[in-house]
Amino acid sequence: MMKTILVINGPNLNLLGSREPELYGNVTLEELNRELETVARKWGVNIEFYQSNHEGELIDCIHAAKGKADFLILNAGALTHYSIALHDALKAVRLPVIEVHLTNPYAREEFRHRSLVAPVALGGVFGLGTLSYRLAVEAACSILRERGAD
Amino acid sequence: MMKTILVINGPNLNLLGSREPELYGNVTLEELNRELETVARKWGVNIEFYQSNHEGELIDCIHAAKGKADFLILNAGALTHYSIALHDALKAVRLPVIEVHLTNPYAREEFRHRSLVAPVALGGVFGLGTLSYRLAVEAACSILRERGAD
Amino acid sequence: MMKTILVINGPNLNLLGSREPELYGNVTLEELNRELETVARKWGVNIEFYQSNHEGELIDCIHAAKGKADFLILNAGALTHYSIALHDALKAVRLPVIEVHLTNPYAREEFRHRSLVAPVALGGVFGLGTLSYRLAVEAACSILRERGAD
Amino acid sequence: MMKTILVINGPNLNLLGSREPELYGNVTLEELNRELETVARKWGVNIEFYQSNHEGELIDCIHAAKGKADFLILNAGALTHYSIALHDALKAVRLPVIEVHLTNPYAREEFRHRSLVAPVALGGVFGLGTLSYRLAVEAACSILRERGAD
Amino acid sequence: MMKTILVINGPNLNLLGSREPELYGNVTLEELNRELETVARKWGVNIEFYQSNHEGELIDCIHAAKGKADFLILNAGALTHYSIALHDALKAVRLPVIEVHLTNPYAREEFRHRSLVAPVALGGVFGLGTLSYRLAVEAACSILRERGAD
Amino acid sequence: MMKTILVINGPNLNLLGSREPELYGNVTLEELNRELETVARKWGVNIEFYQSNHEGELIDCIHAAKGKADFLILNAGALTHYSIALHDALKAVRLPVIEVHLTNPYAREEFRHRSLVAPVALGGVFGLGTLSYRLAVEAACSILRERGAD
Amino acid sequence: MMKTILVINGPNLNLLGSREPELYGNVTLEELNRELETVARKWGVNIEFYQSNHEGELIDCIHAAKGKADFLILNAGALTHYSIALHDALKAVRLPVIEVHLTNPYAREEFRHRSLVAPVALGGVFGLGTLSYRLAVEAACSILRERGAD
Amino acid sequence: MMKTILVINGPNLNLLGSREPELYGNVTLEELNRELETVARKWGVNIEFYQSNHEGELIDCIHAAKGKADFLILNAGALTHYSIALHDALKAVRLPVIEVHLTNPYAREEFRHRSLVAPVALGGVFGLGTLSYRLAVEAACSILRERGAD
Amino acid sequence: MMKTILVINGPNLNLLGSREPELYGNVTLEELNRELETVARKWGVNIEFYQSNHEGELIDCIHAAKGKADFLILNAGALTHYSIALHDALKAVRLPVIEVHLTNPYAREEFRHRSLVAPVALGGVFGLGTLSYRLAVEAACSILRERGAD
Amino acid sequence: MMKTILVINGPNLNLLGSREPELYGNVTLEELNRELETVARKWGVNIEFYQSNHEGELIDCIHAAKGKADFLILNAGALTHYSIALHDALKAVRLPVIEVHLTNPYAREEFRHRSLVAPVALGGVFGLGTLSYRLAVEAACSILRERGAD
Amino acid sequence: MMKTILVINGPNLNLLGSREPELYGNVTLEELNRELETVARKWGVNIEFYQSNHEGELIDCIHAAKGKADFLILNAGALTHYSIALHDALKAVRLPVIEVHLTNPYAREEFRHRSLVAPVALGGVFGLGTLSYRLAVEAACSILRERGAD
Amino acid sequence: MMKTILVINGPNLNLLGSREPELYGNVTLEELNRELETVARKWGVNIEFYQSNHEGELIDCIHAAKGKADFLILNAGALTHYSIALHDALKAVRLPVIEVHLTNPYAREEFRHRSLVAPVALGGVFGLGTLSYRLAVEAACSILRERGAD
Repeated sequence: MMKTILVINGPNLNLLGSREPELYGNVTLEELNRELETVARKWGVNIEFYQSNHEGELIDCIHAAKGKADFLILNAGALTHYSIALHDALKAVRLPVIEVHLTNPYAREEFRHRSLVAPVALGGVFGLGTLSYRLAVEAACSILRERGAD
Repeated sequence: MMKTILVINGPNLNLLGSREPELYGNVTLEELNRELETVARKWGVNIEFYQSNHEGELIDCIHAAKGKADFLILNAGALTHYSIALHDALKAVRLPVIEVHLTNPYAREEFRHRSLVAPVALGGVFGLGTLSYRLAVEAACSILRERGAD
Repeated sequence: MMKTILVINGPNLNLLGSREPELYGNVTLEELNRELETVARKWGVNIEFYQSNHEGELIDCIHAAKGKADFLILNAGALTHYSIALHDALKAVRLPVIEVHLTNPYAREEFRHRSLVAPVALGGVFGLGTLSYRLAVEAACSILRERGAD
Repeated sequence: MMKTILVINGPNLNLLGSREPELYGNVTLEELNRELETVARKWGVNIEFYQSNHEGELIDCIHAAKGKADFLILNAGALTHYSIALHDALKAVRLPVIEVHLTNPYAREEFRHRSLVAPVALGGVFGLGTLSYRLAVEAACSILRERGAD
Repeated sequence: MMKTILVINGPNLNLLGSREPELYGNVTLEELNRELETVARKWGVNIEFYQSNHEGELIDCIHAAKGKADFLILNAGALTHYSIALHDALKAVRLPVIEVHLTNPYAREEFRHRSLVAPVALGGVFGLGTLSYRLAVEAACSILRERGAD
Repeated sequence: MMKTILVINGPNLNLLGSREPELYGNVTLEELNRELETVARKWGVNIEFYQSNHEGELIDCIHAAKGKADFLILNAGALTHYSIALHDALKAVRLPVIEVHLTNPYAREEFRHRSLVAPVALGGVFGLGTLSYRLAVEAACSILRERGAD
Repeated sequence: MMKTILVINGPNLNLLGSREPELYGNVTLEELNRELETVARKWGVNIEFYQSNHEGELIDCIHAAKGKADFLILNAGALTHYSIALHDALKAVRLPVIEVHLTNPYAREEFRHRSLVAPVALGGVFGLGTLSYRLAVEAACSILRERGAD
Repeated sequence: MMKTILVINGPNLNLLGSREPELYGNVTLEELNRELETVARKWGVNIEFYQSNHEGELIDCIHAAKGKADFLILNAGALTHYSIALHDALKAVRLPVIEVHLTNPYAREEFRHRSLVAPVALGGVFGLGTLSYRLAVEAACSILRERGAD
Repeated sequence: MMKTILVINGPNLNLLGSREPELYGNVTLEELNRELETVARKWGVNIEFYQSNHEGELIDCIHAAKGKADFLILNAGALTHYSIALHDALKAVRLPVIEVHLTNPYAREEFRHRSLVAPVALGGVFGLGTLSYRLAVEAACSILRERGAD
Repeated sequence: MMKTILVINGPNLNLLGSREPELYGNVTLEELNRELETVARKWGVNIEFYQSNHEGELIDCIHAAKGKADFLILNAGALTHYSIALHDALKAVRLPVIEVHLTNPYAREEFRHRSLVAPVALGGVFGLGTLSYRLAVEAACSILRERGAD
Repeated sequence: MMKTILVINGPNLNLLGSREPELYGNVTLEELNRELETVARKWGVNIEFYQSNHEGELIDCIHAAKGKADFLILNAGALTHYSIALHDALKAVRLPVIEVHLTNPYAREEFRHRSLVAPVALGGVFGLGTLSYRLAVEAACSILRERGAD
Repeated sequence: MMKTILVINGPNLNLLGSREPELYGNVTLEELNRELETVARKWGVNIEFYQSNHEGELIDCIHAAKGKADFLILNAGALTHYSIALHDALKAVRLPVIEVHLTNPYAREEFRHRSLVAPVALGGVFGLGTLSYRLAVEAACSILRERGAD
C-alpha cells in the first residue's frame, strides 16, 4: 500500500515568501508544497500538507494523523521552543517525525536554542532554507522504503 | 439549589485509553467521565465535562463557567507548565479549583516540575491514574456540602 | 488617506470591568474602546478593535493587519511573557507596535518580568490602567501624523 | 489477611490544631487520626500512626515498616524539601507511598517547591487541609483492595 | 491650589540632543523641558525640572520634593538598573511616579532589562523618544485632575 | 512575673572553647552561659540554656518553649543554612527570636550565606564572638522590659 | 587617650523618624545620635556622626576616618547591597567595622540578601530598630576597652 | 571547474561500525565514505575525507581546506560541544559548512545540547544515522550547483 | 601504641545486603565489618564501627572520636549531599577522613553530585561496592603506619 | 596641534601608596602621575589627571573631556564592575578609552570578573601594577601618532 | 591467560615529582609506575603505562586498548573536567575504568568539581597522592580475579 | 646572562593577516614576530616564538620552557576560555606570564568572557591589535630588567 507523509507547518509559516524574504527566501508555502510533491511522487509516496497558527489545531492534526499518515515532517515554528503540549501530542501518536527549520535556530536568540520537538523526533534538518524540507522528504521516503522492505 | 462541578481536561487527554496505556491506563475519557458521574450523583451534585486541545478554548470555557459552575477540577495537561494565560483565567473567575494529574509530574522531566495552576488552586491530586479524578470529585463534593452547610 | 490603528487585546481582557476590579478598574472593554474611538477621531484617525483568548487567532489577526492597519496597539495579556509565536508574527508584519499593560508587570510575579513583545515594539505604556491605552492611542496618532508629514 | 496502612507525620505536625490555625485548621493530630481510623475501618483495613520531629526516627520507622505495613501515607513536613536520606529510605523499602500536604506548597515560598518525596511516591494529595489525609487513606484502601483482588 | 509636577533626569541625560542622536534624537533637554511646560500649562499644572549625574543628588532632590511636588516623572537613566538607594528614596517619599525612557530598554543589553524604579512606580512609558515624556506629563496631569476632583 | 529567655545552641556548639579556637575563641559553652546569666540577672530576667546536635531535639525544645519561655536566642549552627523544619518550628511557636553567630557567615563559604532562621527572626547579631551572645541577651532583656511596660 | 567611634549612615537614613515609621520607627536620626552619645559617654568613649546620600562622600568620609577614628559603625543603607567601592574603601582603611541595619534585610526583597559590607566587617547587628545601633555602640566600646587593655 | 566537498569527522568517529552499533549502526566510516562518493559523483562533484581524534589536526585541516575545498561537511563529534577553537577556525576560513550528527544530540545528555559549530554553520542534519551524511552531501551538491549557476 | 580506625556509616546503610541488592550487593553491614576487621588486623590496627540513621548521633559520634580514634572512614549516605553540620563536625575534630561510597554518586541524580564531606576529607573511594571500604581501610592503615614512622 | 590624554582614576585610587601596599605597591598617585608625564612628554603629548571617589563627578569629567581630550585612560576602580552610568557616559562621548587595572581582577572575587568599561573600551591593560598605566600611556601616544599621521 | 591493566595519565602528569611537590609529592611518574608494577606482579597481572599531554593521543590510546587491555586506570588530569571526547572514547570501548586523582578535586576550584570521567567509570579513588594509584591497581586486580573466577 | 622571552600563540593565530582582517588587521604573524624582535633587541633581551593549533603541543612547549625561558607571553586564542590543562601547565612551570589578546574578548560572545589564563597570569593586555603584543614585550623586558637589578 502507498505510504503517506504529512508535512505540518506551524505559526507564521503561511507567510513564507513575503515574510522577511532576505531571511526566509521568496518561495511561497504553496510553491514549496508543489516542489515537495514532485519529490515524493518520484519515490511513489503520497504527501499531504497542513498549516495552522493555532497550537490546538496542530495538536488536533497530529492526533488525526494517527492511522492516516506514516511519517510526519514538522516545522513547528516558534512553538518548537515552548509548546510542551505539542511535545506530548507527538509522543502520544508515536509516528516517526523529522524536525525542520528554514533558518538555524542555534545562531539566533537564546530563547530559540531549546527545542521541545527534538527529544521526540527521529532527527532534523535546519538552516538550509526550503532545501531543509526537500531533504526531510527525501529522508522520510528513504526510511519508509527501507522499513517497507523489512 | 443543586451544585455543579465542571471537569476540564486539556491537550492530549482526549487520547486517554489509547495513548501510552502502560503510563496512562486503558480507561477512555468517556468511561472515566461516566465513573465520575456516578460519584457525583451519590453526593447529589451535578457534574459536567469539557475537553479541548486549544488553550484559547479552555480559557473561554473557564470564563463561561463563572456563574454556571461552583467548582472546577482541572487537568490542564502540558499547559500546566507554561500557560500563564490559563493561570490568569483561573485567577479572574475566582472559582475553587482542584488540580489533577494522572501521572506524577515531579517524577518526570524537569520541564514538568513547575505548575502554573498550583498557585491558583485550592489543592491537588496527582500520580494515582484515574483515581486522581475520583478523589478530586469526592473532595469537591465534600467541600461544596460543607460550604453549603454554613 | 485616513490612517488606521488596530487595538489588539489578548487573553482574559474580555473580562475587563468584572475581573479583579480593585486591580483592573471597572470600565468594560466595550466602554474603553468607545473612549479610544473618541481620542482617535479627534486626530482624524480610524481605529479598530480585536480581542481573543486564542494565541492562534491573535496571530491570524496580526497577519491580516498587514496592508489594512498602519499601527498596532497590543496588550497581549499573559501571552506577553511566553508566546514566541506572537513575537514572530509581529516581527513578520513589520508594523509599528506600542505595547500596553493595565498594571505594572514589573511589580508583579517574577514570571511577568520578561516581555517577548517589548523587543519587537517601538515602545510601551504600562501601569496606568485604561489611561495606558489612551496614551498609546495619542502616541500612535502623533507618530502617524509626523510620518505622514514627511 | 488484613492489610495495614502506616500514616507517618514529620516535623511540627504534632502541633496540628494549635499551630497557625488560620493556615492549618484546628483539628488536632489525635482527632485527625481517629477520623482516619473510621475511614480505614469502613474498608476493613488496619491503620497505624507515627509522628516524629527527628529525621533519623522517621527513617528508622520507614525501615521498620517493611514487612509490617502494606502502604505508607507520608507528610514529611519541611523534610519533604531537603531530606535526601528520607528519599533513600523510601526507595530502599519499596513500599507504595502517597505524599500528603495540608497546604499547597507550590503556592508558598520558593524553597517549598521541590519535593524529594514526590519522585519516589506513587502519587500525592495537597492543599486540602485534613481532607488531604482522608483522600489519601481512601486511595490507599482502594489500591490495596484492587491489588488484593489480583 | 496649583499642583506641581517635578521631572527628574538622571545620568547622561544632560547630553540629550548631542549624545548618539540617531538613538536619542536631536532635541536638547532644554528644548524638551520647554515643550513639557507648554503641555503642563494647558492643564493648569505647574512643572519643574532637575537633572544630575550624581545618584546622591537625585536622592536629595527626591527627599526635597516631599511637600513641594505632587507628582514625579523620572528618567533615572542607567541608575534605573542598579540603584537600590534611588528605589528606597522613592519608596520613602511616597509620591506618585511615572518611569520614563527615551529608548526601549527591553530591546537593548541584558543588564538594562531589570528596573528598580518600576516596582515603586505607578506606571511607565518607554521607547517613544521625547514623546515618552510628553505622554508622561499628560498622564500625570490627568491623574492629578482626577484626584483633585475627588 | 519574671520573664524567661531560652538560649538554644545547635550542632557543634558543645565544642566551644576546644574547636578551632583561633576562629571561635577559647571560652567554653559552660563559661559563656555563666556570663550570660550574670547579664540576665542584672536585668531581673531568668535565663535557661539548651544545646543539641540533633535537629529533632532542637525542634522538640522549641515546641516545649511555648508557654515557658518569653524570648529565644538561637545559634542554630550549620542548621541555620538548610533546616526548613527549624524554620517551621520557630514560625509555629511565634516567640520572638534573635539569631546569633560567633563568626560572620557572610565572610565564609557560599553555602553559609543563606539563613533560614533570619526570615522568622526579629533580628540578629553576628561575627562578634561570645560578645554576639551578650548583646543578644541585652537586647532580649531590653525588649522584654519595654513590652512589659506597655 | 580617648578613643573615637564614628557612626556613618548612608542613603535615606536622614529621613529616619518620618520615612515609613511603621517599618523604621519614629525616632529621628538626631534623637538616635543623642542616645548613642549617652551610651558612649558611659564608657568614656568619644563618638561622632556622619550621614550622606552620596556614595562618594561616604567613601571620602571613610578615608578621612583613618587616623581620626578607632572604630566604625556603618549602616550603608541600600549601598550595602551593590557598592563595591564602599567595600574597597573599608578594606583600604583597615578600621574595625560593625554593620548595622534597622530592619532585617534577609526577611525582605531578594536584592537585599547580599551584603558587600559584611565580608569586610567584624560583625553586625540587624533587625532590632534603633536598638541595633545601641548594641553596636556597646560592642564597639567593649572591644576598644578590651584592646586598650592589651 | 569541478567543485570539491571535504567531509571532516572528529573524535571517535573512526570507530563507526564497531562502537555502540545499536546506537550508531554497523556501517564503517570507510563504507560510509564510499557511499558518499557515489552520491557526489552523481552530481559531478569531487569529494574528500578526513578524520582525526585531535582537535589541533582538525583545525589544521580546516585551515588547509581554504582554497582547496568549496564546501565542508563536519561531524565534530564531542568537540561540537566545547571546542571554541574549532568554532574560530570555521569562522576564519569562511567556507560554507553543514553540521552533521548520527544521533540526535538534543535527546541525549544536557552537555550535548549546546553546539559551537551551529552558530557558524549554514545548517545541519542530525539524528538520521548515516542518512544524515547522505543528505548533507546532497544539500552541499545542490547548493554548489545553484551558486555555480549564478 | 595501637592505632584505631573508626568506620562510620550514615542513613540507610544498616539495610546493606537487603536494600536494592542489584545496586548495593548482598553482603550485610555485619559481614562487611568482619571483613574489614580482617584487613585491619593484618596491619596491626584496631578498628571500630558505628552506624546511625540520625544526623545528630553521627555528629555526637564524630565528637566522641576525638582522642579515641586516629582515623575516620565515613560513608555519610545521603547526608553527604546536604549536611553542613556533619561537615562542621569533621572540621572541628580535625581527624583524617576518607570518604567512601558503594556506588558512584556522579553517575546518579544531580542532587548527589555535590559532596559536603569531600572538602574536609583527605581523599575518597567510590563506586566499587564493598571493595570501596576495603581500599579505604588499606589506605588508612598505610597512612597511619607511614605517619607512625615519622 | 598637541594632543591631550586624560587619565581618570575612580574610587579609592587617591589612597595609592598607602592602601594595602603589598597589593597595590607604595608609589603614590602623585608620583605615578609625574612618571606618566615623563612618558607623555617623550611623545610630545599633553597629559592631564583627574581622580574622584564620586561616580557623578567622574561622569561630569568624562562629559567635559569631549572636545578637550583626545584619549581617555580610565581606572574606574570598583565602579568598573557595576556603574552602567559610567558605561553610558563613555559611550556618549565616543572618545577612545584604554581600561587600566593595577591588579588582575580576574584572579580576585567573583564580583570583580564583570567589567562594564571593557565593552566600550578600545582595549585594556591589567595586573601589572603602575606599569599598567605606563603601557596604557605608551599605547595611547602610539595610537594618537598613528591617527595623526593619516 | 594473563590479564592486562593499562594506566593512562593525561596532561601535566609527566611533571610528577617536580611540579608543585608540596601538593603532588616528589615521586616521579617513572618511580610511581615501577611501584605499580610491583603491585600488579604480586597479583599475576600485566600492567602497561601511557602518558600524553594531547587529548587526541589519549583518545587514540583508549581506542587501541580495546582488545589489548582488560582494565583502564585513568587520571585524565585537567581533561577530566571538560573533555567530552574522552568521555565518548571511554563509552565507546566499554572497558572497565577506575578514575584516579592525586589531589581531592572537590576541595579545589569550582571548575574542578565536575568530572566527565566519573559517569562512565566503575568507580574512583582521589586525594590520596600516589596511594590513589596503588589502591586503584589493587582494586583492578581484585575485580579482574573475581571476574576471571566466574 | 641574557634573558629570554617566549611568545606563544595558540589556535588560529597562524592565520594572522589573512583571517578576518577587518577584525584582526593585516599584519602576518611572521611580520609581527619581526617587530617584536626589534623591541626586545632594544632592551637587550632574547625573544623566541612558538605557534600551534594543538592544545597538547602548547602544553609540551610550556613544559619545555621551564629552564630555557624567563618570561612567557601567551595568546592562547580560543583555548583561553576552556583549557584547564593549559591553566595547569602554566601553574606547574611557575614562569611569569602576560596574557595577550588582539581583540577585546569582554566585548564579544558570552563564552569568551571567562579566561582560564588570567588567574595564573601576572597581568594582561587586550584589544589593541598587534600593539597588545608590543606592550606585553615592553612590560616583560621592563620587569625582567627590574628583577635583574635586585
